[in-house]
Amino acid sequence: MTQFGVLEESIVELAQSAAFEAMNDALVLESPIDHLFVGTQNPDEFVGQGHLSTLLSDHLGVVPAGATRIETGPSSGSSAFESGVSMVAAGMADLVLVVGVEKMSQVDRNTASKILAKMLSYENEIRYGATPSALAALIARRYMHDYDLTRDDLSLIPVKAHRNGAKNPLAHFQKEVSIEQVNNARIVADPLRLYDCCATSDGAAALVIASDKAVRNHGISDIAVRVLGVGHGTDYLSIQHRPSLTSMNATKVAAKKAYTMAGITPADVDVSEIHDAFSILELVNMEDLGFAEKGSAIKMVKEGITEVSGNQPVNPSGGLKARGHPTGGTGVAQIRDIVQQLRKGS
Amino acid sequence: MTQFGVLEESIVELAQSAAFEAMNDALVLESPIDHLFVGTQNPDEFVGQGHLSTLLSDHLGVVPAGATRIETGPSSGSSAFESGVSMVAAGMADLVLVVGVEKMSQVDRNTASKILAKMLSYENEIRYGATPSALAALIARRYMHDYDLTRDDLSLIPVKAHRNGAKNPLAHFQKEVSIEQVNNARIVADPLRLYDCCATSDGAAALVIASDKAVRNHGISDIAVRVLGVGHGTDYLSIQHRPSLTSMNATKVAAKKAYTMAGITPADVDVSEIHDAFSILELVNMEDLGFAEKGSAIKMVKEGITEVSGNQPVNPSGGLKARGHPTGGTGVAQIRDIVQQLRKGS
Repeated sequence: MTQFGVLEESIVELAQSAAFEAMNDALVLESPIDHLFVGTQNPDEFVGQGHLSTLLSDHLGVVPAGATRIETGPSSGSSAFESGVSMVAAGMADLVLVVGVEKMSQVDRNTASKILAKMLSYENEIRYGATPSALAALIARRYMHDYDLTRDDLSLIPVKAHRNGAKNPLAHFQKEVSIEQVNNARIVADPLRLYDCCATSDGAAALVIASDKAVRNHGISDIAVRVLGVGHGTDYLSIQHRPSLTSMNATKVAAKKAYTMAGITPADVDVSEIHDAFSILELVNMEDLGFAEKGSAIKMVKEGITEVSGNQPVNPSGGLKARGHPTGGTGVAQIRDIVQQLRKGS
Repeated sequence: MTQFGVLEESIVELAQSAAFEAMNDALVLESPIDHLFVGTQNPDEFVGQGHLSTLLSDHLGVVPAGATRIETGPSSGSSAFESGVSMVAAGMADLVLVVGVEKMSQVDRNTASKILAKMLSYENEIRYGATPSALAALIARRYMHDYDLTRDDLSLIPVKAHRNGAKNPLAHFQKEVSIEQVNNARIVADPLRLYDCCATSDGAAALVIASDKAVRNHGISDIAVRVLGVGHGTDYLSIQHRPSLTSMNATKVAAKKAYTMAGITPADVDVSEIHDAFSILELVNMEDLGFAEKGSAIKMVKEGITEVSGNQPVNPSGGLKARGHPTGGTGVAQIRDIVQQLRKGS
């Protein structure tokens, strides 16, 4: 992956850096790639260039590979990985390159917010002025009410994110913050304050997915990490239509599919990179992934279990908050980070 | 599929109509869909709404299915089909819904052209004022020079398209045109005239992809059409970088993959729906697909072989020219039309 942050490089340069690093790392730089999947949320509007599938197939030197751009909002990178896995599992490709990328700083912050808001429902949300931060604030307020979560509790999440990000040389934000700094930062959408919300970032990450045959043929079984399971779910787009503000059924469904495919339970998970675009979501996601009972994820955080030094680290990279969140790049970066963790742990 | 044309319906309504018709036709209206693939080129800019994967999962009533939006420019619908096929072939889904949709008439024609031009290379094409029509004109001029194709010859393509479209109640244009009308229409990009160029359309089409198990469980083997092969290729994005103006390597690569997977040769193909966004492309594509030797596709057209009454009909629907080209909808509509042809032929 590239550095995440506000960067000089163009979207193509970012994708190239990440892709070449991934192909080099996987020892396939000289091998023909069968298919390229590009996870990116909205290059048409963020940088004024569309058709990233063919554009990148060209600039990454993988022509005449098939190339597909995948977009599922901020999870575009993870979905690109899912499509790549299914193509390899189907026997329709042996070597797939997955690139997740977003270049968000080319437009001003106000324009970026408007572009991002298009992922919400126009009818039920956008036209009333709702923004992603405002909706996350609703979730936070409800969660704090239902489960007696305090401001000090919630602040532990960005504090941990920044502590981890400070040790990640590729993170957008590499300095620690204190509970007091989080508590006293300016309000973005009450009760969420500045450090509860991820920033917009530029950056790219890439992965190579190889079939068993390709792993054998390239002699890379010692660096390959096996994909045991993937899962994907959706929910009603407008959060007002969902039965709960504090639990996401899409996450539960996706996790169940992945666990079933992998033949494991949540207790088998040693380390995870999860979506914390807003601090409250780290707690909600931990619970929906089955790591903690409803309302009790904060207990694990307080006990240090989710620290890098704990038994089940969550977001050791710094998460979306500190590593950064170039939307299409995030899912791929998360998987890249987990690959590194699993290699070191093996 | 819905009517194609300039329509009142919203992008969601179009997708709903096509999807419900497909699910009803496949007798799976009451069955849970495992995954939704949405092929659409640029709803963020054409209608100001993004995140179509979850939006449509919600509006089509398939929550909590996984949902993925696929974008590969004007082939977005075909690519959505490819991703759906690979997920079913991988055993990761039993019932997949594929929806291709575009709503292009909500913006004025000038804005639509600018949105579409983003699929070209900014560095090598857009900033010099190149448009899709201008680049197709280069291809046509070169082809006419190299293979002695006359204006009258080229006009046979839109004449056939409109003849077929006139019999297709869902086509955008349902009236015949004469060679004289085509020859004398206003110039869009010399030598291409009005009837050489497809219009922009609104419309949606949908398909259900089922695993062998799902076909058995739903008792739908008599209406199911087996997918024998799919293929996908890319080329250098800027046509100036390609070795030939009159042949597309991406098409050749994609066709070879599909033929190999299916275990057939071009001679085995009874009927086809191919890309004729500009008249010249029907000839180029027929040749790249192996239906005719280089420069000789027009001979097949003149001999009536590609007519509905001929031995190897090409674009019996009317093609992009007459059926219409709501970009993300086209690939899915093509496959929908071929399914109808194969059912009637079986």
